[in-house]
Amino acid sequence: MAEIEPKPEAVALLGAGVIGGGWAARMLLNGIDVRLFDPEPDAQRSVLAVLERARRAWRRLTLAPLPAEGTLTCVDSVAEAVAGATLVQESAPEREGLKRALLAEAGAAAPGDVIFASSTSGLLPSRLCAEMDGPERLVVGHPFNPVYLLPLVEVCGGERTPPETVARAAAIYRAVGMQPLIVRREIDGFLSDRLLEALWREALWLVADDVATVEEVDDAIRYGPGLRWSAMGTFLTYRLAGGEAGMRHFIAQFGPTLKLPWTKLTDVPELDQPLLDKLVGQSDAQAAGRSIEELELIRDDCLVAVLQGLKGQGFGAGEVIARVEHGLIDAAANAGDDRLPTGEPLRLHEAIVAPEWIDYNGHLTESRYLHVLADATDAFLRRIGIDGAYLAGGHSYFTVETHLRHLGQASAGQSIHVTTQLLGHDEKRLHLFHELRRSDDGELLATGEHMLLHVDTKAARAAPAGAGVLVTLGLIADAQSGLARPAGRRRRDRRWTRARDLDK
Amino acid sequence: MAEIEPKPEAVALLGAGVIGGGWAARMLLNGIDVRLFDPEPDAQRSVLAVLERARRAWRRLTLAPLPAEGTLTCVDSVAEAVAGATLVQESAPEREGLKRALLAEAGAAAPGDVIFASSTSGLLPSRLCAEMDGPERLVVGHPFNPVYLLPLVEVCGGERTPPETVARAAAIYRAVGMQPLIVRREIDGFLSDRLLEALWREALWLVADDVATVEEVDDAIRYGPGLRWSAMGTFLTYRLAGGEAGMRHFIAQFGPTLKLPWTKLTDVPELDQPLLDKLVGQSDAQAAGRSIEELELIRDDCLVAVLQGLKGQGFGAGEVIARVEHGLIDAAANAGDDRLPTGEPLRLHEAIVAPEWIDYNGHLTESRYLHVLADATDAFLRRIGIDGAYLAGGHSYFTVETHLRHLGQASAGQSIHVTTQLLGHDEKRLHLFHELRRSDDGELLATGEHMLLHVDTKAARAAPAGAGVLVTLGLIADAQSGLARPAGRRRRDRRWTRARDLDK
Repeated sequence: MAEIEPKPEAVALLGAGVIGGGWAARMLLNGIDVRLFDPEPDAQRSVLAVLERARRAWRRLTLAPLPAEGTLTCVDSVAEAVAGATLVQESAPEREGLKRALLAEAGAAAPGDVIFASSTSGLLPSRLCAEMDGPERLVVGHPFNPVYLLPLVEVCGGERTPPETVARAAAIYRAVGMQPLIVRREIDGFLSDRLLEALWREALWLVADDVATVEEVDDAIRYGPGLRWSAMGTFLTYRLAGGEAGMRHFIAQFGPTLKLPWTKLTDVPELDQPLLDKLVGQSDAQAAGRSIEELELIRDDCLVAVLQGLKGQGFGAGEVIARVEHGLIDAAANAGDDRLPTGEPLRLHEAIVAPEWIDYNGHLTESRYLHVLADATDAFLRRIGIDGAYLAGGHSYFTVETHLRHLGQASAGQSIHVTTQLLGHDEKRLHLFHELRRSDDGELLATGEHMLLHVDTKAARAAPAGAGVLVTLGLIADAQSGLARPAGRRRRDRRWTRARDLDK
Repeated sequence: MAEIEPKPEAVALLGAGVIGGGWAARMLLNGIDVRLFDPEPDAQRSVLAVLERARRAWRRLTLAPLPAEGTLTCVDSVAEAVAGATLVQESAPEREGLKRALLAEAGAAAPGDVIFASSTSGLLPSRLCAEMDGPERLVVGHPFNPVYLLPLVEVCGGERTPPETVARAAAIYRAVGMQPLIVRREIDGFLSDRLLEALWREALWLVADDVATVEEVDDAIRYGPGLRWSAMGTFLTYRLAGGEAGMRHFIAQFGPTLKLPWTKLTDVPELDQPLLDKLVGQSDAQAAGRSIEELELIRDDCLVAVLQGLKGQGFGAGEVIARVEHGLIDAAANAGDDRLPTGEPLRLHEAIVAPEWIDYNGHLTESRYLHVLADATDAFLRRIGIDGAYLAGGHSYFTVETHLRHLGQASAGQSIHVTTQLLGHDEKRLHLFHELRRSDDGELLATGEHMLLHVDTKAARAAPAGAGVLVTLGLIADAQSGLARPAGRRRRDRRWTRARDLDK
């Protein structure tokens, strides 16, 4: 099990802008008390607004219970803020003189073993600590907006910072759910902002030269390369772009384009044999023995997961996937109209057990059985003509009661399918029986018996289904009339709970 | 409803490398026939491998039924490939001479109204078409690896390409589920590769100068900025970094750092008033009237969705979130040991209805009722001592039967909670009754009755629960002995289906 790392009890925050407010939210949600100093009179209000956003985000991110929140105390001086703090995090505006003075004041007020961290995006810790008592106590701890959600924090010591202090700062950040990245050489802009600024400089040129608008520049990222960057960085992505031949092949193919004027920023290191060997060696180390094929599957699974997530938000690339999916569903509904039902249970839904459906026991998790059966219900509804236009017209079926039997287990990657028997229907009701089976050996994994009610969604009351729907239901019922009643179904003498009257 | 755009019936693909194979997979999965020419004898095998990966990815991406796959035909000449094709997509190695010759050969063999597209990452269409019959038929259609998953395709015409041809090419790409981005000015590297290369050049410097390894460079992206780039590009991200003051404030704050040596690539446009006004104006247009606060919520929801997705994969930032979540669950399990049960049903689980739990009717979708109830079961199991160590020891409870009543509806953002009554237990069995309620008005949304079996997960058979677990169950049963049997529970005379003997 994951070890629970020690968290500080209290931290001092200097500055309550976008970054300082994000730090406050992350610390408070981790149960850590925050003493915050910002001369801005509006600081507390803006921090509380960030905290509310952070609470909302974390409630969506995990159903695990969060610890009791820490206490936020806004104070009137640097000295009050640092009293009793394990960590002093400075997030003042990006002006070196201002930060130096603030850190000097904080350093004078705080006892010896406190860690000082600056949120600077690129100023050097050796310069920021120049006026501090105990300058060896300062590191850079550079987070990314929104600080309460993004794991990355760059940790960089100055000339006088001992490695133990860098390690202690990293441990604190890890304890509040972050991913510290130790920057081993103190350089302007550290690692991330060097990369971000290079991209941004080029983006500014594209806009300045009227090649593209800011929106087109953003689209050139978020519909393509940005999706890859969310899981893999640039080198691992390029290792895969080389195909089975990997990094050496990629550089052989695309190295020459570095000589072409593909950016305004043309300075490029000489791709000589020592650099090539270094790149290939480090890329091999990063791959850690995983073949290109394995890495491609990891990449694809991550992209699918990211696209699935964005699909739920209907934003960016997720909007594209949602559009594709709607098209597929409509096409399937349209195609279904032509087929006449047979005497067998209908096989309308198939799926592959996805890795994210697996619980801590290694099996298809409980609610995903119903997820698959509910998708089978949807497939049945499409089959009887409940398509986008029908839904848009203000009618739908709602499930009111479900009886599941969990009979077998399934593992990630297995093919499963559902067959559906129509047990009964009238103008308003629909009684379905699903069998969920593993496709390769036919093993019965679950049964689901479902009672659905046809509703007028605008009036929010039960209403008769459309004539076309009832005709199709009649055809299916006639075709299936020779089927035995399924064994796992509830006894006939056991009445279903009366469907709730939706009029009330 | 989304309109189904017309798809071509057949396309010709020239080149079957990483990009050509990706095109083949995307086209085939869209039901389009592919005629593929590649002189490499191994081409068919490698395309089939890409196709298999693409099938796997799309099965995970959507449960909607895909169309019947197109037919792949590997042919021996360019002329055979282009016969009957609506689109000829060239994906040869990135050498201008090679591409020019190939396009000239294809252009000579294909009738007039065929569209030719080159997958080049950055070579100019006006040069690539130089030796073609009908050079006005050529556009660049630059996709991103993996082509079968990433929506982005840059579409750029040459000097002689009429806008209608660019529009036709874009329509074809849209019809196969892509997001065409029209590049309005023909420049080397188009938009994406200008940005990608700027970042990569800086990354190469970091490695060449021994500031960081390739893995550290990648981590500087994927744990932070890369997550944002998956949903929003660089300009919209920076608009939000400016806080409530937006883009003008961001540039006022970070514009000066462009003068600092934060990258090796220091060429930067003059941030004079006309450029500033242009950036602010275009950024306002991109925001389309949405306030910073609205955009922050969209950003957070997208980040949560992306992190949720990656958490399921246990990769990159998702691994960090999984670690945090395990820590939270363990902390909750440990904390639970100290509390004694009361006579009330236990309230162990709360949640907020997430937007991705909402179905096309605007309500909590069927399977998410069970999702929430199953999480409540998990919370109950943690409460009785089933923690990480217990699971690692090879024991767990599995649900064997479930009876749900769907009684009310819930919308996104509503708070819900579950209370749990222990209806019965013995050494191996556990009989739970959950009530799911909306928290603000207490309305009963669903009940769930669940029979669980304690199992030895290694031997895959039912087995008695641990002594500590049985003691805690006894305490809860005693405390709840005064509670009435719930009204929605199944009749006492109705026996549950006998739990499957896991020994068989």
